Amino acid sequence: MNARITAVDTFDIRFPTSRSLDGSDAMNPDPDYSAAYLVLRTDTADAPEGHGFTFTIGRGNDVQVAALDALRPYVLGRSVDELCADPGGLHRELVGDSQLRWLGPEKGVMHMAIGAVTNAVWDLAAKRAGLPLWKLLADAEPEWLVSQVDFRYLSDELTPADALDLLRRGRVGRADREARLRADGYPAYTTSPGWLGYSDEKLTRLAKQAVADGFTQIKLKVGADLADDVRRCRTARAAVGPDVRIALDANQRWDVPEAIEWTRALAAFDPYWIEEPTSPDDVLGHAAVRRGVAPVRVATGEHVQNRIVFKQLLQAGAIDVLQLDAARVGGVNENLAILLLAAKYGVPVCPHAGGVGLCELVQHLSMFDWVALSGSTEDRAIEYVDHLHEHFRTPTVIRDGRYLAPTAPGFSAELYPAAIAAYTYPDGTFWAADRAVSTGRTPA
Amino acid sequence: MNARITAVDTFDIRFPTSRSLDGSDAMNPDPDYSAAYLVLRTDTADAPEGHGFTFTIGRGNDVQVAALDALRPYVLGRSVDELCADPGGLHRELVGDSQLRWLGPEKGVMHMAIGAVTNAVWDLAAKRAGLPLWKLLADAEPEWLVSQVDFRYLSDELTPADALDLLRRGRVGRADREARLRADGYPAYTTSPGWLGYSDEKLTRLAKQAVADGFTQIKLKVGADLADDVRRCRTARAAVGPDVRIALDANQRWDVPEAIEWTRALAAFDPYWIEEPTSPDDVLGHAAVRRGVAPVRVATGEHVQNRIVFKQLLQAGAIDVLQLDAARVGGVNENLAILLLAAKYGVPVCPHAGGVGLCELVQHLSMFDWVALSGSTEDRAIEYVDHLHEHFRTPTVIRDGRYLAPTAPGFSAELYPAAIAAYTYPDGTFWAADRAVSTGRTPA
Repeated sequence: MNARITAVDTFDIRFPTSRSLDGSDAMNPDPDYSAAYLVLRTDTADAPEGHGFTFTIGRGNDVQVAALDALRPYVLGRSVDELCADPGGLHRELVGDSQLRWLGPEKGVMHMAIGAVTNAVWDLAAKRAGLPLWKLLADAEPEWLVSQVDFRYLSDELTPADALDLLRRGRVGRADREARLRADGYPAYTTSPGWLGYSDEKLTRLAKQAVADGFTQIKLKVGADLADDVRRCRTARAAVGPDVRIALDANQRWDVPEAIEWTRALAAFDPYWIEEPTSPDDVLGHAAVRRGVAPVRVATGEHVQNRIVFKQLLQAGAIDVLQLDAARVGGVNENLAILLLAAKYGVPVCPHAGGVGLCELVQHLSMFDWVALSGSTEDRAIEYVDHLHEHFRTPTVIRDGRYLAPTAPGFSAELYPAAIAAYTYPDGTFWAADRAVSTGRTPA
Repeated sequence: MNARITAVDTFDIRFPTSRSLDGSDAMNPDPDYSAAYLVLRTDTADAPEGHGFTFTIGRGNDVQVAALDALRPYVLGRSVDELCADPGGLHRELVGDSQLRWLGPEKGVMHMAIGAVTNAVWDLAAKRAGLPLWKLLADAEPEWLVSQVDFRYLSDELTPADALDLLRRGRVGRADREARLRADGYPAYTTSPGWLGYSDEKLTRLAKQAVADGFTQIKLKVGADLADDVRRCRTARAAVGPDVRIALDANQRWDVPEAIEWTRALAAFDPYWIEEPTSPDDVLGHAAVRRGVAPVRVATGEHVQNRIVFKQLLQAGAIDVLQLDAARVGGVNENLAILLLAAKYGVPVCPHAGGVGLCELVQHLSMFDWVALSGSTEDRAIEYVDHLHEHFRTPTVIRDGRYLAPTAPGFSAELYPAAIAAYTYPDGTFWAADRAVSTGRTPA
């Protein structure tokens, strides 16, 4: 029996998060956390489906869905066995399409859509294998993993032979690390206390709660107003004491000179890193900031468009911490390349997460990295934000400040049908009811 | 009277260029030159409309149109006077929208759509001023031009004060240069002979024709097969003789080591530059290629996503020639920033053109640059390809290998209504007739 992909269903899903200022920062004052979401369906009854998505923050989510729709012809009718045996084959085909390529190449709306489709195939492959994705990757033969990486534009820094060597060395001791992962999970840090829209009282309360919950690092948004930032850093440091790490996140708010000056002005509060001090495109700018703010570390990655920019951030010595994102680049395959680059340079990976489902996805990549590639959790932690997990069928589980290893087969990407039905925009039940209320309030 | 924007009409326009292999290169074997096109209409009868577009090469043009549609609410109902007095105000608003920004930021589909809308406003502004765009820009006060530039992420390299100084110095002697421009036009080079899909005979014939037509530089596509490239370079050099410049264009085909090796293997034919030797995202890679292939020059830009990457290409000493594109970045405003950066570094700008309407647009930017900024045409030339000009109301005019200065008011962006009616995809008259024929040929 040769199952086929019979439908690629797409959804514009938006959550009204702007109403609570959850997720507010210096560049994103009012995000409505959203997902351009897709489901790969097959012609086999009761067989698994593949789920994937791009995370956005509201307006433009429809454009992202249009990009998913444009990829439908590449997937429809394909053999499920063949796709799942070689997700990299489809990934290379999508990235290499000579006409679609013009829309990037390998960046922005079209590249994120390719990442969502690629991730949906991985979700399907892991479900069919009966394994959580991290375990599928950790058990895979190094040769096969290397076959899943697109080395184009990397070979001056990372060749297939380099990758094979890293993966072979990464396997040594993996049974022991897998046992530790299953017992204790993977380190997390939390951003929940630090959104810009929160009062000092709420910041203090949530920061103390984070420490009580076992977190050893929290993160504060900064960059809108220096006097406010000084006060908030002081407040946070007072709340958590000297031993908990406080990371700062400027969300691209500054030019290079301002980034250096502002970060130095906050150095008295012993920040652990400054995140996204300037444009994610500015490799040389990040390098200048890093020279200017040491010993404060520089972290970036959630908006880094692809492996080529990560390669340069490492080559230029521009970052201390690499913040991979599961749904920004071209999916698992490109993230394998990025993890390999980080391993080659010995730079710790602390993934970006939060939003809609990013925690659910990215935990698999860090857990694979620990078990079978870098072999370490030292100075590594996955961002954790307690938003919207309840809509996922297999949500992240946090215990004592650590992500527990997922055990359900797949990539943890699947929203409940009820969440899709409620939050599909503009006609889901939540949005329709909301419109009825506001129409009642404001007669036309 | 206060005119308003009453409609933002968008069109998915595709020309069947793949059938003739016009435009074929090592990465783009079968482009269907396309435009995601928009028209800004106002409530004033017989008043000008604003036209703008993003150039694409076929599939995905619908996604680009969806991005234009997403920008409609930002423009609809706006005061025409206010938009035209300050296109930079709208531009900053679009680039800075906190939710749309997530889809880039400032790159790919959403950024190109912002560029198209911005350029349509400039078209409208120039028509209302009764001036071709180059003349509107060349006559504008330096202070106002500076107000049109978004300096975010540039201030480590270019401040408003730097820009003002460059523009004030650039004005000296501009009446004289404007007279020379009006008399003799601006230098062009031609890519028409060098597409990969052409036979050696056609290459020879077109190369000789180019020289006879007054061009002093031609361009060949390379990168698919080294033996072929050696033969084609020899053929072209034999056709044009030793004094005509031959530029080579690899269209991102290579990794860094291969780019160096391949270019060196063609050095015997005295190439003037190697264009897009590798990924447009790879600033450090371009710098390495430049060191490796000197004295062959390195040129890039048609796929460079924004001013921030151009800034770094200049900072890193990665390019000898900057190839600005009128419809890739965020429109005229961002291209002003890029021209200012190039002027600061003294790097010549040789714009990318061809495709659909890129020649029509970009000539205005180079002409402004000569008259009122860099003050020079030395080692500068605008790419020229003789494709699809007939569909434009005020097409480029080439004489003796030079672009003549446009005299019609506007940005030369306007397609004839008949072209829109024929080539709108999939229901324009050309595509409908084409489908009827192919359906007749291939029964389902």
